[in-house]
Amino acid sequence: MQSEEPEKKTSREKTFVLRNSFLTDIFDDYHTRNLYNVYVIVVTGLCLQNALRHYVNDGRVEFGLETIGKGFAKFDKAILIWLCCFLSTCATFFFFQIWGKFRTWDKKLTRTWDWFWAAALGLYYFYTLKLTSTATLYFEFNPPCAAFVSMESVRLLMKVHSFVRIKAPPLMSASEDAKFSNFLYFLFAPTLIYRDSYPRTNSINWNFVICRLLEAISMLFMFTFIVEAIYPTPERWLAKYTIKDTMLIITEWIPHADLVLCGSFFLVFHSVQNLFAEVTRFGDRLFYEDWWSQSKHSKWLTKWNLLVRDWLYCFVYRDFKHYLCDNNSLAIFVVIVLSFAMHEYVMFCFIGKFIPCFLFLAIVVVFPMFYLNFPKSIFFNVLLWCSSGLMMSATMLMYTFEHYAVMKAPLKDPTLLELIIPRFITCDCVLKF
Amino acid sequence: MQSEEPEKKTSREKTFVLRNSFLTDIFDDYHTRNLYNVYVIVVTGLCLQNALRHYVNDGRVEFGLETIGKGFAKFDKAILIWLCCFLSTCATFFFFQIWGKFRTWDKKLTRTWDWFWAAALGLYYFYTLKLTSTATLYFEFNPPCAAFVSMESVRLLMKVHSFVRIKAPPLMSASEDAKFSNFLYFLFAPTLIYRDSYPRTNSINWNFVICRLLEAISMLFMFTFIVEAIYPTPERWLAKYTIKDTMLIITEWIPHADLVLCGSFFLVFHSVQNLFAEVTRFGDRLFYEDWWSQSKHSKWLTKWNLLVRDWLYCFVYRDFKHYLCDNNSLAIFVVIVLSFAMHEYVMFCFIGKFIPCFLFLAIVVVFPMFYLNFPKSIFFNVLLWCSSGLMMSATMLMYTFEHYAVMKAPLKDPTLLELIIPRFITCDCVLKF
Repeated sequence: MQSEEPEKKTSREKTFVLRNSFLTDIFDDYHTRNLYNVYVIVVTGLCLQNALRHYVNDGRVEFGLETIGKGFAKFDKAILIWLCCFLSTCATFFFFQIWGKFRTWDKKLTRTWDWFWAAALGLYYFYTLKLTSTATLYFEFNPPCAAFVSMESVRLLMKVHSFVRIKAPPLMSASEDAKFSNFLYFLFAPTLIYRDSYPRTNSINWNFVICRLLEAISMLFMFTFIVEAIYPTPERWLAKYTIKDTMLIITEWIPHADLVLCGSFFLVFHSVQNLFAEVTRFGDRLFYEDWWSQSKHSKWLTKWNLLVRDWLYCFVYRDFKHYLCDNNSLAIFVVIVLSFAMHEYVMFCFIGKFIPCFLFLAIVVVFPMFYLNFPKSIFFNVLLWCSSGLMMSATMLMYTFEHYAVMKAPLKDPTLLELIIPRFITCDCVLKF
Repeated sequence: MQSEEPEKKTSREKTFVLRNSFLTDIFDDYHTRNLYNVYVIVVTGLCLQNALRHYVNDGRVEFGLETIGKGFAKFDKAILIWLCCFLSTCATFFFFQIWGKFRTWDKKLTRTWDWFWAAALGLYYFYTLKLTSTATLYFEFNPPCAAFVSMESVRLLMKVHSFVRIKAPPLMSASEDAKFSNFLYFLFAPTLIYRDSYPRTNSINWNFVICRLLEAISMLFMFTFIVEAIYPTPERWLAKYTIKDTMLIITEWIPHADLVLCGSFFLVFHSVQNLFAEVTRFGDRLFYEDWWSQSKHSKWLTKWNLLVRDWLYCFVYRDFKHYLCDNNSLAIFVVIVLSFAMHEYVMFCFIGKFIPCFLFLAIVVVFPMFYLNFPKSIFFNVLLWCSSGLMMSATMLMYTFEHYAVMKAPLKDPTLLELIIPRFITCDCVLKF
């Protein structure tokens, strides 16, 4: 496979080396270690604000525990669904072995055999996503559980695809065997690119593990405090909103939207990935680069999440160009649409309804941005931050509206068009024109 | 003078050397230069939020210009008062010369002559403060003008005291002469410790000057946006507030209070001081140290403002111990009370009413804090930030209440007690118990 591709591409093949995350180094550096305090101050400040507000309003302080309890109400069922996903993922390994073992049994049937299993894999992808979302909606999970289940199912599918895509060519040419222990390690290691072995650290630093775990827990509380701050009472959402109200809420929410943006990044790409990396002694911890200082939208997006970027580059961008159509722009377009469609899928699991908000963003904003070449300057960096805050705030409000619209006026047997058009526009119970 | 003092003290004598401000170095460093973007993003974000809010509410965007216009409405009169202060400051130089010239004219009268001028100096301090505050209240300045006039009068008095205190001993012993040009330079140089000469830079970097000027202007806008955000409509303040409302507002205001805290610091101690330092080619730019990373309240306060700290150390702490009472705690107490009394004075010029809020803080919170020895840890740093945010927010609300209380129920010929007890407690038109 590799040898067939041009030299330029081969040089961008993912190589794993022992290295720290950006923020780990920043928080170790003498000049910048105080930046860590900013995170602690923000979380503590929000906690204090939350406690005071609750004490004054309700006469008691519960530090967001009630909301967290509600959010994780059906976590046992979520774990059950996750277990099904996980076991089916493990099963793919054995089906992969069966495919490899018997494909040369009858040389005439090899091609048919390959196509059969390729189709089976495609169906497996489709039904995993479909069944997960159906189960999520059936159990009426709250956002934390819905996020856990849907994101895990997507992650496991990406792992399966990575494993099959990387192990199939050598198995086809040399009947090389794959070990289940390697596959199992890969499922828990913080990477989406399969290798038989990775650079590993010598030992587990349990202090590091505990710190990352505490960070993750603190982030959970932070999100709870933000949710309680911006959704003060459920009754608020029973009213109808004019365009003016909508714009005011978007404006009001910008600081919280920025906190959600930075907090999600910190939780998912720093704390959780480093936690799993330390526990699995995984050496390469470059899960993200310094997206925050970029001036270009494309750089911002590609440095935000190296895990998925590498996966998209190897298995979508490169494979698309190699097997389907050698057009760079089209390949980029496919990558962006697929990536944003997956965000859309996760949001669908949250509220049980599509609004093609992310797809719209992807096609109208993000794709053209890849072709605008901003010079690296403070002005464009600030522009990027402001537009991100605004977009994040608007997106949060749109999904909130949609959530309440679906609750107030549920759709019975919706057509595809009804499923795609935002319900808060058509239901006449959220917006007032 | 110096030789009479113990060696330990002499070593803490202020020495001026060529050096940059902390933040100048931080914003130059490769790892931390992106922190500058945070400031630009915050200001731009607040501007955006303000513009959107105004556009939605009033259908037009005026970027805080109307509020700034109101704030600086009587700036011509403020300049006039400042000019009076400045000219009287210059006059002290010539009176100082007269004192020096004629004190040895009749040896028997030298002591009387000295005491006469010392008393005159004391009266000059008292009447400058009194006349400035009277003029400020007479012209009914809005906060920006009131701040400008009152802070400038205090600054000029400190300069005069510094000049007299440092030049008097050599003049008394050796009839050494002082040059008016040195005195005039000292009035504009960003320091409160008089020297005949300072380390100077070779040239003025006008780019640097323009950047600091733009920063100062942007900070002015930032404060305007914050004021417009937390005081949305004047009518809001016509209602009565329960203790519950009060606590909710304090909680709500914490982020804005932190912005005011950091913004004032950045404006006064970084932008303005560096601007004047560059224009006067003043070399020693250590106007503050890294107070933000401290764990002790005392360190926080002393590193926040090195200009005033040095002045208080030389002319209050050391002189108090040397001439009045060699008790360390008492000297610290006097320094703290004087420093907070000056804050009280500036606030008095704002609203025309004392609330001994700062004095209360000084005696009950700050002074005991000097004796608590917290270990340098992230926990105490976070505690310090949270308590500062809370105190700042509470102080802002208290002065807002007092401002509206005085407006709604002005005091006619108040007694001293009435002048000290917060009006918002006694007027029965702000709080509802």
